[in-house]
Amino acid sequence: MEEVDALDRLEEIKVLIDDKLELVIEEQSSIYGDVARIAGDVVLAGGKRLRPILIMLAYDLAGGKDIEDIIPLALSSEFIHSATLVHDDINDEASTRRGHKTIHSNFGQAKGIIAGDYLFSQGFGLGGRYEREVVEVIAHYCSKLASSEFTQIDHILDLSTSPEDYLEIVEGKTAGPFAAGCKGAAMVAGAKAEKCNALFEFGMELGIAFQLVDDLLDIRGDHRMGKPRGADVYEGKMTLPIIHALTLLHGEKRERLSEILHDFKDSLFEELISLLEFAESLSYSEILIANHLERALSKLDDFDDCDAKQLLKHVVILVQNRNS
Amino acid sequence: MEEVDALDRLEEIKVLIDDKLELVIEEQSSIYGDVARIAGDVVLAGGKRLRPILIMLAYDLAGGKDIEDIIPLALSSEFIHSATLVHDDINDEASTRRGHKTIHSNFGQAKGIIAGDYLFSQGFGLGGRYEREVVEVIAHYCSKLASSEFTQIDHILDLSTSPEDYLEIVEGKTAGPFAAGCKGAAMVAGAKAEKCNALFEFGMELGIAFQLVDDLLDIRGDHRMGKPRGADVYEGKMTLPIIHALTLLHGEKRERLSEILHDFKDSLFEELISLLEFAESLSYSEILIANHLERALSKLDDFDDCDAKQLLKHVVILVQNRNS
Repeated sequence: MEEVDALDRLEEIKVLIDDKLELVIEEQSSIYGDVARIAGDVVLAGGKRLRPILIMLAYDLAGGKDIEDIIPLALSSEFIHSATLVHDDINDEASTRRGHKTIHSNFGQAKGIIAGDYLFSQGFGLGGRYEREVVEVIAHYCSKLASSEFTQIDHILDLSTSPEDYLEIVEGKTAGPFAAGCKGAAMVAGAKAEKCNALFEFGMELGIAFQLVDDLLDIRGDHRMGKPRGADVYEGKMTLPIIHALTLLHGEKRERLSEILHDFKDSLFEELISLLEFAESLSYSEILIANHLERALSKLDDFDDCDAKQLLKHVVILVQNRNS
Repeated sequence: MEEVDALDRLEEIKVLIDDKLELVIEEQSSIYGDVARIAGDVVLAGGKRLRPILIMLAYDLAGGKDIEDIIPLALSSEFIHSATLVHDDINDEASTRRGHKTIHSNFGQAKGIIAGDYLFSQGFGLGGRYEREVVEVIAHYCSKLASSEFTQIDHILDLSTSPEDYLEIVEGKTAGPFAAGCKGAAMVAGAKAEKCNALFEFGMELGIAFQLVDDLLDIRGDHRMGKPRGADVYEGKMTLPIIHALTLLHGEKRERLSEILHDFKDSLFEELISLLEFAESLSYSEILIANHLERALSKLDDFDDCDAKQLLKHVVILVQNRNS
C-alpha cells in the first residue's frame, strides 16, 4: 500500500471513531446531563485515537468481519483512556489539556474526580457487553494500570529507579492497555490463542515504544498536546533518559544532575539536556525505541499479508515519527 | 420465621460475603500489590454489606438456584460502593472512615484517586462477566450515580433546593444502585421482566428510605460510622429535614435557619434541631421513611412466600431501625 493511501485509510478510521464518539456522547448527554457533556468534551477535544484504531485494525487482522461488533470495544478504550487523563490531570495539577482547561481547574476537583468515574463507568459499560474472557482481559489491565500508577508515585524523584522498575511501570501504565485492547479485539474476532497472543505482544511492544517516544518528547518537544516541555521533569517522573543518565554519569556530573532534578526550573533545561547528551541517554532511548518497534513488527509476521497488516505497520511508523 | 432466626440467617449471609471478599482481596493483593492491599483494607474495614446481601436475597427470591452464580455480582456491588466511598472521602475531605484513616489522608490524594479507580475496575471486572443486559443495568446506574453527584454538588447550600431535586439526587446516588443490584440479581436468576421490575422497585424504595434514615442520623446520631454528627450540615448538603424546614419556615425563623446553615458550627446544633422540630421536619422525614418502606414491602407481594422473602422483609425492618 502506498504511504499516502495508508495515511488516508488511517484517517478514515479515525473519522469513523470520532463520529461514533460524537454520537454516543450526544446520546449520553441527553441521559446523564452535565457530567456527560463535561466529560464528553474531554473525549471529543482531540487525541490521536490510537487505542481505538489499534483495536479496529487488530480485529480486522485477526479475521473479524463485522465492524459493528468491535466498535463498542474501540470506543470503550477511548473512554477508559480519557478517564485516566482526567484523573491524572488532577494528580499532576495540570490546568490545561489539548488547549482546554482541565475539568478540575474549570469546575472544581470534586467534579473532576466524578467526571473521571463517569468515564470509567461508560468505558466499562461499553466493554462489558463482550464475553467474560474479553472483559477479564480489559479489567485486569485496568487494575494493572492502577497498580503501576502507585509504583510510579513511589518512584517520584527516586534517583535509584532502575530500568526494570521503569519497564514495569510502562508495561502497566501505557503498554498494557494497548496490548489488552489488541488481544481483546482478536478474541472478539474469534481468533486462535496464538494469534491473540501475537497481537497482545504487538500492542505491548508498540506501547513501550510509544511511552519511550513520549519521554523523549517531554525533553525535546516544543508544545506537546498543550503540556509544557519538561512537564515530567517538573513532576519528578523518572523517565528513561533520566534513569539512563543517572546510571551512567558519575562524580560531579551525576551530582549536578541530581541537583537539577530536585530543584528543576526552566533555566536549567539546556544544562539538563547537555548532561543527557553527555551520557548519550537520548540516543540510547532512540535505539530502544527502534528495537521495540522492530519487535512489534515481527509479531505481525505470522499473519497473512492484507490491508490491516499494512495499516498496522504504518501505525508503527507513525509512533516512531510522532512529534506530538 | 422468628426474628432471631432471621437475624442469624442474615448474619450468615454477611459472613459468607465477608469471607469471599477476604479471599478475593488476598488473591488480588498477590497480583496488584499495594493498591489492592490499601484499597482492599477499605472494603474489609467493615460496613453492613447491605448491597451484596440484597443481591443474594433478590437472586434467591427470583428463583436463582446456584449461589456461586450470583456471588461475583454481590462482590462487585461492594467494590463499586467502596470505590465511591474512597472518592467521596476525598471530595468531603474526610480524614477517617470506620475508625481508620482514609486513603488520601494516609497516602496522599493521588493514591486515593487511583485506589478508587482500582476498586471500580475490580467491581466492573466482577460485574462484567454477566450477560450484556445485566452489565448495562449496572453500568447505567453507575453513570447515573456520577450524574447525581454532579447535581448534588450544584445544590450545596442552595436553599431553594426542592424535594423533587432531593429525590432525583437520592434516586441516583443511593437508591439507583440498590435497585440496579436487585434487578440485576433477578435477571441473573432468569426471572421474568415483571419480577425483575418488582425487585428493581423494591430496591429503589428501600434505597430512598435508607438515605432518609441517613439524613436523620446525621442530625440525631451520635457516632455514625466514625463520621461526626452534622457532617452533612457542615458540608452544606441539602438533606430532606433541612429542605422541609426551609420550605415550611417563614420570616425570622427561616432567616435564622439560613444563617445557621451558611455558617454552621457545633454550638449551633441545638438551635438547628429546635428549628427543625418547630417545622416538624424530623417527624415529616419519619413519615416519609415509613411510606417508602411500606411501598418496598408491597413490591414483594407478588412473590410466593419463602425464606428469601422473609429475610428481605427483615432487611426492611433493619433499615427502619438502624442507628449507624
